[in-house]
Amino acid sequence: MPDASPAKWHLAHTTWFFEQFLLARRPGYRPLHPEWNYLFNSYYQSLGSMHARPQRGLLSRPTLGEVLDYRQRIDERMLELLARDEVDAEFAALLALGLNHEQQHQELLLTDIKHLFSLNPLQPVFRERATAPGTGPPPGLRFLRGREGVAQIGHGEDGFAYDNETPRHRVLLYAHALANRAVTNAEYRAFIEDGGYRTPTLWLSDGWDAACAQAWQRPLYWGQDLQSEFTLAGVQTLDDAAPVCHVSFYEADAFARWAGARLPTESEWESAAQQRAVTGNFADGGTLRPRPATGECGEPLQLFGDVWEWTSSPYVAYPGFSPAAGAIGEYNGKFMCGQWVLRGGSCVTPAGHLRPSYRNFFKPDARWQFSGIRLAQDA
Amino acid sequence: MPDASPAKWHLAHTTWFFEQFLLARRPGYRPLHPEWNYLFNSYYQSLGSMHARPQRGLLSRPTLGEVLDYRQRIDERMLELLARDEVDAEFAALLALGLNHEQQHQELLLTDIKHLFSLNPLQPVFRERATAPGTGPPPGLRFLRGREGVAQIGHGEDGFAYDNETPRHRVLLYAHALANRAVTNAEYRAFIEDGGYRTPTLWLSDGWDAACAQAWQRPLYWGQDLQSEFTLAGVQTLDDAAPVCHVSFYEADAFARWAGARLPTESEWESAAQQRAVTGNFADGGTLRPRPATGECGEPLQLFGDVWEWTSSPYVAYPGFSPAAGAIGEYNGKFMCGQWVLRGGSCVTPAGHLRPSYRNFFKPDARWQFSGIRLAQDA
Amino acid sequence: MPDASPAKWHLAHTTWFFEQFLLARRPGYRPLHPEWNYLFNSYYQSLGSMHARPQRGLLSRPTLGEVLDYRQRIDERMLELLARDEVDAEFAALLALGLNHEQQHQELLLTDIKHLFSLNPLQPVFRERATAPGTGPPPGLRFLRGREGVAQIGHGEDGFAYDNETPRHRVLLYAHALANRAVTNAEYRAFIEDGGYRTPTLWLSDGWDAACAQAWQRPLYWGQDLQSEFTLAGVQTLDDAAPVCHVSFYEADAFARWAGARLPTESEWESAAQQRAVTGNFADGGTLRPRPATGECGEPLQLFGDVWEWTSSPYVAYPGFSPAAGAIGEYNGKFMCGQWVLRGGSCVTPAGHLRPSYRNFFKPDARWQFSGIRLAQDA
Amino acid sequence: MPDASPAKWHLAHTTWFFEQFLLARRPGYRPLHPEWNYLFNSYYQSLGSMHARPQRGLLSRPTLGEVLDYRQRIDERMLELLARDEVDAEFAALLALGLNHEQQHQELLLTDIKHLFSLNPLQPVFRERATAPGTGPPPGLRFLRGREGVAQIGHGEDGFAYDNETPRHRVLLYAHALANRAVTNAEYRAFIEDGGYRTPTLWLSDGWDAACAQAWQRPLYWGQDLQSEFTLAGVQTLDDAAPVCHVSFYEADAFARWAGARLPTESEWESAAQQRAVTGNFADGGTLRPRPATGECGEPLQLFGDVWEWTSSPYVAYPGFSPAAGAIGEYNGKFMCGQWVLRGGSCVTPAGHLRPSYRNFFKPDARWQFSGIRLAQDA
Repeated sequence: MPDASPAKWHLAHTTWFFEQFLLARRPGYRPLHPEWNYLFNSYYQSLGSMHARPQRGLLSRPTLGEVLDYRQRIDERMLELLARDEVDAEFAALLALGLNHEQQHQELLLTDIKHLFSLNPLQPVFRERATAPGTGPPPGLRFLRGREGVAQIGHGEDGFAYDNETPRHRVLLYAHALANRAVTNAEYRAFIEDGGYRTPTLWLSDGWDAACAQAWQRPLYWGQDLQSEFTLAGVQTLDDAAPVCHVSFYEADAFARWAGARLPTESEWESAAQQRAVTGNFADGGTLRPRPATGECGEPLQLFGDVWEWTSSPYVAYPGFSPAAGAIGEYNGKFMCGQWVLRGGSCVTPAGHLRPSYRNFFKPDARWQFSGIRLAQDA
Repeated sequence: MPDASPAKWHLAHTTWFFEQFLLARRPGYRPLHPEWNYLFNSYYQSLGSMHARPQRGLLSRPTLGEVLDYRQRIDERMLELLARDEVDAEFAALLALGLNHEQQHQELLLTDIKHLFSLNPLQPVFRERATAPGTGPPPGLRFLRGREGVAQIGHGEDGFAYDNETPRHRVLLYAHALANRAVTNAEYRAFIEDGGYRTPTLWLSDGWDAACAQAWQRPLYWGQDLQSEFTLAGVQTLDDAAPVCHVSFYEADAFARWAGARLPTESEWESAAQQRAVTGNFADGGTLRPRPATGECGEPLQLFGDVWEWTSSPYVAYPGFSPAAGAIGEYNGKFMCGQWVLRGGSCVTPAGHLRPSYRNFFKPDARWQFSGIRLAQDA
Repeated sequence: MPDASPAKWHLAHTTWFFEQFLLARRPGYRPLHPEWNYLFNSYYQSLGSMHARPQRGLLSRPTLGEVLDYRQRIDERMLELLARDEVDAEFAALLALGLNHEQQHQELLLTDIKHLFSLNPLQPVFRERATAPGTGPPPGLRFLRGREGVAQIGHGEDGFAYDNETPRHRVLLYAHALANRAVTNAEYRAFIEDGGYRTPTLWLSDGWDAACAQAWQRPLYWGQDLQSEFTLAGVQTLDDAAPVCHVSFYEADAFARWAGARLPTESEWESAAQQRAVTGNFADGGTLRPRPATGECGEPLQLFGDVWEWTSSPYVAYPGFSPAAGAIGEYNGKFMCGQWVLRGGSCVTPAGHLRPSYRNFFKPDARWQFSGIRLAQDA
Repeated sequence: MPDASPAKWHLAHTTWFFEQFLLARRPGYRPLHPEWNYLFNSYYQSLGSMHARPQRGLLSRPTLGEVLDYRQRIDERMLELLARDEVDAEFAALLALGLNHEQQHQELLLTDIKHLFSLNPLQPVFRERATAPGTGPPPGLRFLRGREGVAQIGHGEDGFAYDNETPRHRVLLYAHALANRAVTNAEYRAFIEDGGYRTPTLWLSDGWDAACAQAWQRPLYWGQDLQSEFTLAGVQTLDDAAPVCHVSFYEADAFARWAGARLPTESEWESAAQQRAVTGNFADGGTLRPRPATGECGEPLQLFGDVWEWTSSPYVAYPGFSPAAGAIGEYNGKFMCGQWVLRGGSCVTPAGHLRPSYRNFFKPDARWQFSGIRLAQDA
């Protein structure tokens, strides 16, 4: 899969990020491996040309040992620098960016490993799973009325955020309601059994083309029996009560149409999430798998963690957006085309990485992310 | 080019549209060529399967004579029906749709012929051109302040509109200004000469990939000398003062970034166009080529006609949108993904086809349409 | 299909051939349409660059009328020239080549029309067919012992031949036997019903890949019921006794392996054909469809006409071969790679076009030709 | 590159070969990892389905450690078995096949590593190279008259050979002469400088298409300056006197045409090699790079080692050929289509692996093999 990268590459790239954007800012800094720039630059055109993404898997050199050594030496240099207490505001901002960048790649690592292992006929286990906690059925599906009229979304002044979350700005919310929880595996199976994948009128035109071309019949890692799924703990029984995961935007959209609903806009989602504590089933919990919702059905559940939630919002710039200066400005802005916003993080997102204003984005046919569905309705 | 269709196909398809959606609604109607349904259905999944678009060029049968005969007989039946004065409101609405559909294909015919002829090494002339009217330089480029705050866009109650223009709804306009006219060929040439096509940081990431993959160096029909262009009148000298045409969304976006501006949102565009008369350089004028702006530089010029104007708005549903019932509902809604809105019509759009609320849409790499650029700015 | 060309192109190209290689040899000749050189040059690199083959279908100009006019005027000039009685030996040789070239395109025209019509959902009829002659079952399959030891093949001195049939040279024939007739539809159906298309060990590796990639289940124009076929007279009942047709080399080879036999070498074939009259079911008979063999089962039947017979011989140069001088030398030699020799002509080959030494050649996955199977065995 | 495999895969596959074809023949044998069959079966359809070749690079499991362990345990079992002295003739034949198979993969390993390293921007060194031996200019190019008339080629009775070298049979040799040595880098550079890569009339049609599509300008690993090349010792100065290497059949054929010569047939080559000792620059010498010819110019030099020599012979079955029984029969026969024979081994072939009758074969556009050119002429 051209979107996935090997673990060694992730490790080298995040290390390079610290070296390039933090260490190398100091006058006289001499890079450890100047020739690696080309290899481990992901997409920063300002910094020169780069290795083609699909060829990352061919890099048998540098070896894993060399990369681990590189990591250790850059870690040492970073610690040294931080110990000197010469950190100014700009440096601090870049450091925060570097750490958040690292967290993103921690999530990607798990996502890419799951994908790679799924292609391996041996179906390897990444991590054995503790006994599954007994859970009852999830709360029934209810639609909770959202705010209406002019509201504010986007990142305000305090704390770290990516540039694509700014500026904070007014939006107009129309009368609407959001589902109290994510769509479950059982609900999604009903869509399949009702012929969801055989009914073109439920789908966007591009979605139908993608579904036909790639022969989609069910979520990415489901077994043909619709009762099992491939997970980071190998093949497991599908949990009917857990959120459906690894569906594309096209599938989420078709499901919503079938259900007589729609996907939420990112404004609707953010306005619901603004007052909520950022807690949930994140990577640090160690389950690495979405879990059934628990709690009161009158409350919005699972906004954070479990699965990224596709919104109906194309990923575009907020009014007044301007990208950060320099190469860092290539982080987000140049991808504002052909992708859709997802919100809320997933069970492989590091805890502490999320915010209500956090905007993730993927192409509408992406399925290897831990992406699921929350429904919405006009009210 | 898989997006273009032969003239014979356009003719048969628009004829079929009247037969299928109007004549065939009457009880007992027997289609003239039931076996042609499969051939001339463009994309209505509700009506059954259809011939693959890229294979339309292979239909040596039915012959042109048979299609012309079909046209004549359907025309006769339509006239007969209209003469009977039994037209109810639903029929009238479908009739209006059929006529507007026909107008869209009239424009597509010219667009596709231009493309086909451009690929022919003989560079044929579609229509000899009358002597070009002498025009002075266009008015200087100025930015005109737009409306701010809550406004209304979308189609209201009177007259025909496509479902994608509805419902009329409130939007929030941020402080902004629109250019008084379209970007000219001379202005675009300056972008090229300044290295626009060699500077990745000016481009969206997907745009840069498209530009590299397709080796874009200039607008679609320009000669390598940047002084000539292929037109429906064959190769002609490029008019410096006329609007640049046949650029993709990616190029429009990169040009705007280079110019220190941005593209307008469709709300901004529509709010500016609402008070304006729908006049301009349309197909009926016979020029079939964009013309330099004339008029006062304090007024917005060329909003209608000349070139379709790319906006920064992805093509998505308006809040509360629901597609028309039945197969007609496939006309617009299912394409709301991966495309961008264009506004204002062009020199090959039939006069009378446009409205301020009219939304056209194409994929961001489309260049064979008569598409150009109007700049905008935050104010 | 990239290998097929429109009828208009065939007509213009064969006309151009006469103009380019015969008329234009005379000093002072002025071509009628110099700009058409680029369009109607098929593959003569020596004569300049040319229009890409798959784009031939896009040439809406010149129109059919212009091409017919071109044909008429070139015909007139040719007749004029011939009337002047100034024809030298070199001119006569080129004239023979031009006429043979024309015959090849007559065959290709029928082949390409059949293919184009087969893709048309209307399944048009090219020519209504006279009542099929009643035929009994074909003679039983027998293997007839061939010549052994050193023999001569290739074209000798008299009459026209392509350069690839020369020089006449000695070959070594091993003990072998040839089938008395072509493989029939009934015999081929038995192969299908025995799982021929599901048994990889019967196939060459590339053949199996092609069969899987293109989902081959039966000969090109057969219906799914294995009882009907698309012909130039539309869909017809399959004649069990007639030769199987429109199979690729890969299918011919797999069939032979299944039958415990092999395909003949071209030397074996030619040595058997050398003493035979060149008669058979050719295009001039008007059937345009292979017919069951009739005659004595102790004689080799159907060597000429009905179906081209795949041999086991890759298409390479004969020992001592040198291509004709000039552009004419591009006719054959440069294609001696990756193709296989077929022998004997088919039901769409013009009578009088064939010789025992005639070598046709196609890529091993080609199926749109009228190609069938004759078996051979080591003796 | 889809034709290359990772080192880990080569190791596991050759080990699996011994287990599958030797150990598993004994009643009651229990495979160590039955689930690995699918992964390490290269192309034996008789043994079940297999992992797609281009996906071999994605197998992060089993780990290298697991594969090395597998190797060790299979080695132990093989030694045990051999110690028991129960080896019958059939077993001995399979053992010889397994060892020869292993040698082939030893060569492929070096070939694939060179290719993988060449794609790595770091241009890693596989093995530092000892000081190059000083060599004078090679002997001048001369053509040595070959045998004429009926001769015998193919493997006779003694010793190991692959089935594709059998049966030994008579061939007819025409009057011809073979070059005394391989074409050198200097000679090939002259071809380039004379416009060889810009002259379509020198090329086979498919060859020209391949050269254009893949933008060939020089042999695979040459630098743009035509003075350096990538080797297993990293980038090195090109040795003018050494044989040109890493050219495709298409390039070899075009060079020969440019030189007024042709490539030898495999019969011509084998008849020249039959009386020669099988000595030369093989892998065991450790140079891993072709070396200039040394010796008398009246003798055929470099027939063995240095570079595989493309012949003009398509890879087809010898008269009377029948593949070995069972899965082993898939080793060679099913590839007899679309490939060309190469002869003589190269500087990465294990010494002792070659025979005069040895037939190697690759597709005509293959360049990653150590393949070069020997010229021939009609006499």
